[in-house]
Amino acid sequence: MFEATKVGRTVSKGEFKAQRDELRTELLDAQRRLKESDISVIVVVSGVEAAGKGGVVNALNEWLDTRGVQTFAFWEMSDEERERPRYWRFWRALPPRGEISILFGGWYLGPIEQRFQGHCDDAALDAELARIVDFERMLTQDNALIVKFWFHLSEKDQKKRLKELSRDDRSRWKMLPEKSKFSEQYQHFEHVAERVIRQSDRGIAPWYLVEAENTRYRDLTVGKTLLQAIHARLGEQQVVTEPATPSDPLQLPESESAQVTLLDQLDLSQSLEKDAYKEKLKQLQAEVNELAWTAYKKGRTTVLVFEGVDAGGKGGAIRRITQAVDARLYRTIPVAAPTDEEKAHHYLWRFWRHIPRAGHMILYDRSWYGRVLVERVEGFATEAEWRRAYSEINEFEEQLVENGAILMKFWLQVSDEEQLRRFKDREDTPYKRYKITEEDWRNREKWSEYKAAINEMVARTSTEYAPWTLVEGDDKYFARVKVLQTVCDGMREALKKKKSEIGTGVLRCGDLLRADDD
Amino acid sequence: MFEATKVGRTVSKGEFKAQRDELRTELLDAQRRLKESDISVIVVVSGVEAAGKGGVVNALNEWLDTRGVQTFAFWEMSDEERERPRYWRFWRALPPRGEISILFGGWYLGPIEQRFQGHCDDAALDAELARIVDFERMLTQDNALIVKFWFHLSEKDQKKRLKELSRDDRSRWKMLPEKSKFSEQYQHFEHVAERVIRQSDRGIAPWYLVEAENTRYRDLTVGKTLLQAIHARLGEQQVVTEPATPSDPLQLPESESAQVTLLDQLDLSQSLEKDAYKEKLKQLQAEVNELAWTAYKKGRTTVLVFEGVDAGGKGGAIRRITQAVDARLYRTIPVAAPTDEEKAHHYLWRFWRHIPRAGHMILYDRSWYGRVLVERVEGFATEAEWRRAYSEINEFEEQLVENGAILMKFWLQVSDEEQLRRFKDREDTPYKRYKITEEDWRNREKWSEYKAAINEMVARTSTEYAPWTLVEGDDKYFARVKVLQTVCDGMREALKKKKSEIGTGVLRCGDLLRADDD
Repeated sequence: MFEATKVGRTVSKGEFKAQRDELRTELLDAQRRLKESDISVIVVVSGVEAAGKGGVVNALNEWLDTRGVQTFAFWEMSDEERERPRYWRFWRALPPRGEISILFGGWYLGPIEQRFQGHCDDAALDAELARIVDFERMLTQDNALIVKFWFHLSEKDQKKRLKELSRDDRSRWKMLPEKSKFSEQYQHFEHVAERVIRQSDRGIAPWYLVEAENTRYRDLTVGKTLLQAIHARLGEQQVVTEPATPSDPLQLPESESAQVTLLDQLDLSQSLEKDAYKEKLKQLQAEVNELAWTAYKKGRTTVLVFEGVDAGGKGGAIRRITQAVDARLYRTIPVAAPTDEEKAHHYLWRFWRHIPRAGHMILYDRSWYGRVLVERVEGFATEAEWRRAYSEINEFEEQLVENGAILMKFWLQVSDEEQLRRFKDREDTPYKRYKITEEDWRNREKWSEYKAAINEMVARTSTEYAPWTLVEGDDKYFARVKVLQTVCDGMREALKKKKSEIGTGVLRCGDLLRADDD
Repeated sequence: MFEATKVGRTVSKGEFKAQRDELRTELLDAQRRLKESDISVIVVVSGVEAAGKGGVVNALNEWLDTRGVQTFAFWEMSDEERERPRYWRFWRALPPRGEISILFGGWYLGPIEQRFQGHCDDAALDAELARIVDFERMLTQDNALIVKFWFHLSEKDQKKRLKELSRDDRSRWKMLPEKSKFSEQYQHFEHVAERVIRQSDRGIAPWYLVEAENTRYRDLTVGKTLLQAIHARLGEQQVVTEPATPSDPLQLPESESAQVTLLDQLDLSQSLEKDAYKEKLKQLQAEVNELAWTAYKKGRTTVLVFEGVDAGGKGGAIRRITQAVDARLYRTIPVAAPTDEEKAHHYLWRFWRHIPRAGHMILYDRSWYGRVLVERVEGFATEAEWRRAYSEINEFEEQLVENGAILMKFWLQVSDEEQLRRFKDREDTPYKRYKITEEDWRNREKWSEYKAAINEMVARTSTEYAPWTLVEGDDKYFARVKVLQTVCDGMREALKKKKSEIGTGVLRCGDLLRADDD
């Protein structure tokens, strides 16, 4: 694969100067047009050691208008990063629309290094690469332009450069391996790199292999490639999309889904006597208090998602939990309208940014599921957007669980009549009045559409590691106890697990890094 | 001081229920009005151990609409927090306008604990309290309402509660001291608390002492106090301000300041030959490269602020530094218009949020000084706002330096004729054209106002630990070398210092915590 990058291309000083000034003008112009678009640009800078990645980035920083470009290097993880899912640090570095992020290594650095060092095998590397492909597709579908550079040096040239660097005492480079080993290592690295590039080289986010020996050639090539990529994207009318996923693993009967659903099978008449409720509540609250402390000590985050029909009792169920948990340990996140910074990113960005440090309990009063519920029904998201959201959400939740989170999701359902009764009660009770709006009344009329959306959501996103619990909510006592009981059972089971048992069962290159840290 | 909180007030169950529902309705109503105001509310919850701070916060969370309330507990610092100035974690927790943050302990917890444990003396405690008073004044002037609660228990009651808690094996409480020591410790803690409260009890951010024995009385009192405070603030027409600082330490001659200033005394004709420039540049760039690596290894952040007249050569000077520094080590931050999240906070918030982790070099292309330059001259900030900004900025920079940052500020000045020449050149060079706007031409006409603002800025914010360097910029070679030389000299000197010598020379309670960590 790398043969084409070893032909010894060079650019003379004179040529370089002549081309650079023109390139610079064009890049600035492209950047200005970018600013007015809703496209974000992600440049990944990777390659063999000593290929001069820093030099390339310096050139780009010099040519581009610094307003609208940010550079990120991913050093050793901070403890705040380790306590969150692995991709948190990358989400932090994603550019808003109209801007450019330049990433050293990006999400490729970790897997390559770990495979190279033998901390994981090819299967784990492939699993991680599959995640990367999904991640890049997701960003691209959200209008990101991803341009990935791989800088290559021949064995001879790399050796020469490393030797120069190792003489330099301020250099952070690893010591040069012994003479006899160098060739072996070079080939091994080339092998890993080839596997990574082949598997992550997609039309939507292609790799550009660049010969790095001549720095002028290298920098000009990068500048021109980036320029062309931006031009091409600006010229397109629409978002680039890959062909739809060939086979949809979960076929729901189109016509029926809106009619008889699992929601209809709930026995909403279930109830609990007040005395039994009080006793059960007391017992479960004591237990959840204890479990929250245990989870804190073990550094396990608990994520509880509450969705449900209006007046379904989400708030009441949440409060029965938070009443019992130390206020320093939990946070309730009511999902409100996104801010402009949030709107300038992928819709999951605002959930990623608020992922808590390890050991805390987070209760979402509504959540990322808005994408496939209200946004779907009200037409705020296009069909393509909400359709792909199922897998995006599953992936997001998978990462939470991999990082040790205990994740449970609740749908609170009440009957039509009970909902009506509660709406009226809200209008009559002073401190509840703020909870009821015109919109709630309107939503009632769209019930059959909501029903189809809920059904599909539960079917497509109920996973073993992040299950949905449907809660029969007509009787508040019954519903609250069911929620609390499910939370306690789920936490108790999860907290029994050993560290090595945490996760979803799939081994990925990056996860091993965390295991090493224990 | 605490006598008034030991009278044994109680509220019966019946009274509590009756009062609670009304209070709740009123709180929700106040919260809705708050939402439409530009007031933010900060509730600090402090007090003796076992006074039930968690219980109070739970009550508030139950009564208030969770949309618009966030709770923050300040546990052990994360490494990301340790690598930034101490108050970074508090800035992260400040509410946007219209919302409420509830802080456990807030900025009081650290100083109290450290003084109590004997890690600092009264003088260091007082120094920290002076900072706190400044901090709270600053927030209040920016329309924050700060409500601070101190919960008190008598010696007997505290002992009883601690005993109960220590029986509970999931409790995080420290073991109870021996019988004979308890009374001693109680009194010592009371003594520290009294000092803290007295010194930080200001009209703009008063302490409310609350007897905590009866939980119903405690919770109701907190709810009512908060309600009254919000009502009072909503009822006011204007921002609460303390009377102007009595004596202005630095009197500039009003009439002259706009005429002859230190800017006029710069010898702008200074220059450097091209050959000498090239040689000097090479030497200084090698040095700054090396110094940047040393600073990284030592975990010292370098903050370089660039301000100057339009076309003063800021960009060029910045690039001569960044060219030489590894792209993984620096970040250029061009200051653009604030986002809506940023506008919802104090103007310094957007600078606090981007403070980098330890060891990096940050170059600000324009900075927080916009407040006393363009915002002053163009009238975007009121006179009261920009006048108080000097001390706010000094305080901000002091905290950066205390945390180990090397901070240097540059003003790049060019003569009127040279500026005109450069403006024309920009209009003629394709890749420079984006740099020149109508506004730049307009700014030229306001030069005498800018001159006065610059002069006052330099006079009021040039401190020993964060000096301004005025750069004679007519000759670019001379200017760039002067900047690079100053940066190298400053970094070299700073990096020679031992850890114990870092800072501004003032000992504060919180700083000692960091020293302990070494």
